[in-house]
Amino acid sequence: MSITGKSLVAGAWLSNNENGSFQAYCPSTGQDLEQQFSNASEQEIDQAAVQAQAAFTSYSQLPAEQRADFLDAIGEEILNLGDALLNITEQETALPMMRLQGERMRTVNQLKMFSTVLREQGDNEILDQADPQRAPLPKPETRLRYLPLGPVAVFGASNFPYAFSTAGGDTASALAAGCPVVVKGHPAHPGTSELVAQAISTAIKKCNLHAGVFSLVQSAKPQASVQLVQHPAIQAVGFTGSINVGQILQKAVYQRRQNIPFYGELGAVNPQVVLNSMATEQAPTISKGLVDSLVLGNGQFCTNPGLWLIPEGCEEFLSSAAATMKDSSSTALLTRGISANYAKLCDEFANTTGVELIASNTVDADHYSQAKLFSTSSDNFINTPHLHEEVFGPAALIVSYRDETDLLRVLNSLEGQLTASIHGSDSDLQKAGDLSRQLAHKVGRLIFNQMPTGVEVCYSMNHGGPFPSSTDVRSTSVGAEAFKRFVRPICYQNMPSHLLA
Amino acid sequence: MSITGKSLVAGAWLSNNENGSFQAYCPSTGQDLEQQFSNASEQEIDQAAVQAQAAFTSYSQLPAEQRADFLDAIGEEILNLGDALLNITEQETALPMMRLQGERMRTVNQLKMFSTVLREQGDNEILDQADPQRAPLPKPETRLRYLPLGPVAVFGASNFPYAFSTAGGDTASALAAGCPVVVKGHPAHPGTSELVAQAISTAIKKCNLHAGVFSLVQSAKPQASVQLVQHPAIQAVGFTGSINVGQILQKAVYQRRQNIPFYGELGAVNPQVVLNSMATEQAPTISKGLVDSLVLGNGQFCTNPGLWLIPEGCEEFLSSAAATMKDSSSTALLTRGISANYAKLCDEFANTTGVELIASNTVDADHYSQAKLFSTSSDNFINTPHLHEEVFGPAALIVSYRDETDLLRVLNSLEGQLTASIHGSDSDLQKAGDLSRQLAHKVGRLIFNQMPTGVEVCYSMNHGGPFPSSTDVRSTSVGAEAFKRFVRPICYQNMPSHLLA
Repeated sequence: MSITGKSLVAGAWLSNNENGSFQAYCPSTGQDLEQQFSNASEQEIDQAAVQAQAAFTSYSQLPAEQRADFLDAIGEEILNLGDALLNITEQETALPMMRLQGERMRTVNQLKMFSTVLREQGDNEILDQADPQRAPLPKPETRLRYLPLGPVAVFGASNFPYAFSTAGGDTASALAAGCPVVVKGHPAHPGTSELVAQAISTAIKKCNLHAGVFSLVQSAKPQASVQLVQHPAIQAVGFTGSINVGQILQKAVYQRRQNIPFYGELGAVNPQVVLNSMATEQAPTISKGLVDSLVLGNGQFCTNPGLWLIPEGCEEFLSSAAATMKDSSSTALLTRGISANYAKLCDEFANTTGVELIASNTVDADHYSQAKLFSTSSDNFINTPHLHEEVFGPAALIVSYRDETDLLRVLNSLEGQLTASIHGSDSDLQKAGDLSRQLAHKVGRLIFNQMPTGVEVCYSMNHGGPFPSSTDVRSTSVGAEAFKRFVRPICYQNMPSHLLA
Repeated sequence: MSITGKSLVAGAWLSNNENGSFQAYCPSTGQDLEQQFSNASEQEIDQAAVQAQAAFTSYSQLPAEQRADFLDAIGEEILNLGDALLNITEQETALPMMRLQGERMRTVNQLKMFSTVLREQGDNEILDQADPQRAPLPKPETRLRYLPLGPVAVFGASNFPYAFSTAGGDTASALAAGCPVVVKGHPAHPGTSELVAQAISTAIKKCNLHAGVFSLVQSAKPQASVQLVQHPAIQAVGFTGSINVGQILQKAVYQRRQNIPFYGELGAVNPQVVLNSMATEQAPTISKGLVDSLVLGNGQFCTNPGLWLIPEGCEEFLSSAAATMKDSSSTALLTRGISANYAKLCDEFANTTGVELIASNTVDADHYSQAKLFSTSSDNFINTPHLHEEVFGPAALIVSYRDETDLLRVLNSLEGQLTASIHGSDSDLQKAGDLSRQLAHKVGRLIFNQMPTGVEVCYSMNHGGPFPSSTDVRSTSVGAEAFKRFVRPICYQNMPSHLLA
């Protein structure tokens, strides 16, 4: 279980002398780790995609039961990595050990959920019987089924080293759907990616599958990502990351002759609407809940509550939020880039007319990032576009609204969001029909009296939302429905029964 | 029921003096018809989209039962147009009266199918119950539902003046999904579009809906189409037409900040694979079936069989196909552009080394287009890219293959297709497992021993396919599943029961 610094290309661990190498950043020390990782060559990336295509015929025809066994085997092999995996990830991310154990279990459970879905799914075709007597023309027999799309490129996310990375949600759902996967590992946690790829490679051998079913290419160079999404063999892309990088990849996909699904989960500020009675009668509880959700995982969840909407004049809410914030703790963010961007955006907020910094916490080291709470008026928010941007990290902006009309005006000015919460007493919610119907069209998940962080892995989850929270509002990256992003319908007409298996 | 030459913008018939006007071509005479149609102004197109957005709130919240009533009312009002509709369409398309009657009934039945789906669909949400006792964290209650996307732009198709135009499949499915529609009428049949829009307008009044639920903009100018798909209010686009125009619109969509679904159904040659016993033992039957399917509707169906693959040395098949073709009849194609393009591509085929014109028919007027059968070898086909292009009209290319390996090589060289048929005797099909599994990945519908023309409107139809037959392989433009292209998932978490209605 040693780390080689190489890419896994259809069963072979490869490196090259053409493209240089990179090291992972260790957030807790603020220094780079020693291990060098070879930037994958053009030829290695090409081979990963070509071999995924070569594996597609046999893998797409594998019975559902055997695909389920494969997913279970991946989960087992990840657990078999034991503490070695947790330790390298802790070095690469500075995320607390308990969070990493929880995320590892979530990742294994995601794989299990898809294997369960595969074992449960019976014959879910839609069949129309033939009617040879129908006039003026006989009716043919038609049946609707689903086919996997082909090889899928998956991009690891910096903020979820397990659950949205090498064997994360998109990998699990693509493999469940019958698609081979090429993962581009996130350069923030290459050691973690390599160990998980070793686990998948072992599972492939145990299940006796074509080695091209899974490859991991490691690179810190942007052109590696562009090459991968433009490869003719790749038929869909799953990405979780920033709006900036997401749009670069989207444009690269647009340059293809053939349009392919690009599932980018980008940014969101996840508005938290606090209604009147709740904001006044339960000020300490709700403000503490919001601060706790904000600083969870150092504010690095995509469902982090970055925008709070509270009624004007709720002084107790503000003072109690500020007190909780001052007592909170934060450490180092995941990468140098994330830290620098967080500092820059916080400075922009602080220097914006009409924006007040109402609280921040104290941190133990220079390279740690302080959590921050800002506040402003609804008019100032609506008229200042950069206040709508996500600040990735533990910062939130509190916007005060005058009345329901003003609140709707603020919500109407927002772009699409992964989630929104409405926090209200029973009496507040009795009057919240229009509000909730309007807010629904802005979000992928609408929550009542619960915090947005924590995305349940279940049959009815939707993780996605209108642009720019995701680039394709029609699908989810979490939950049992997620495999649908990697299949497509086909109609078989008058198919002989012996070919139907 | 007179024709005004105006656009219908949210209930008002508008024209302008800015953008000039256009006339429809009358294929049977080869002359333009007299009626002038005003090219919609920028402001008219903007208003159509803005009013569709204004109608969205009320229309998207309309109970399914009332949306079903509206679809039924549109069908009734189309039938109420009576012969006036059929007569203007005959002038504008030269399609035979019986075909037009059939297509009108198909269009009314499509509307009825969606109203039936709306009335049948019960509570199809997916629900996960809460589990407050779960450790380490309580499980929230989540429920998955679907929301309409918003205003949809639909482009009328030249070759289906009813079924894929103003009140055609995309309009019916978008309205069923809860989305207002702005139709850009095809300039080949503007009188038809206007009459159908009158019928929809009457239905809107009868059902007491917001007038912005439907608009028809008429224009022969390309920038009108680009403006419409780039309008911020538009959330999805349905298009049926050429690869050329489809790619222009796709690029216009790509320029938006927000990516939206672009459902373009573009070209296909719909390969017809004739297996050995079938090609020899049933040569007259199968060759007649293919020629009849080819010349149906003057070869202007998107599922037209434009590429036939037959075993080498099947002389009887070739001679009997040629004889049937010589006896067939064709008239004028739909537009001057289609006629000119057909003539140009037929000339290119005829002048390609290794391609032989083996039969054509005779026509009664200079501006009519002859049907044509060409033949070539598998090697020549594979090595000559322009022979893979669709020739829109009654022309087919017969490619001879040596054996199954050669056949798979030819099929492998093809781009995506709407349909393919495999024609084989029982003994042929016993050996066709690999062939059918491989061909499935190239097509949206795989057919056995039936012709590709005739797309059944039913629950299990899929009309679409891998690029370039469609721009989005994940959805169908025909059948009960078609409304799914205009909805998206949303998860409601911990939703109070009184807000669930």
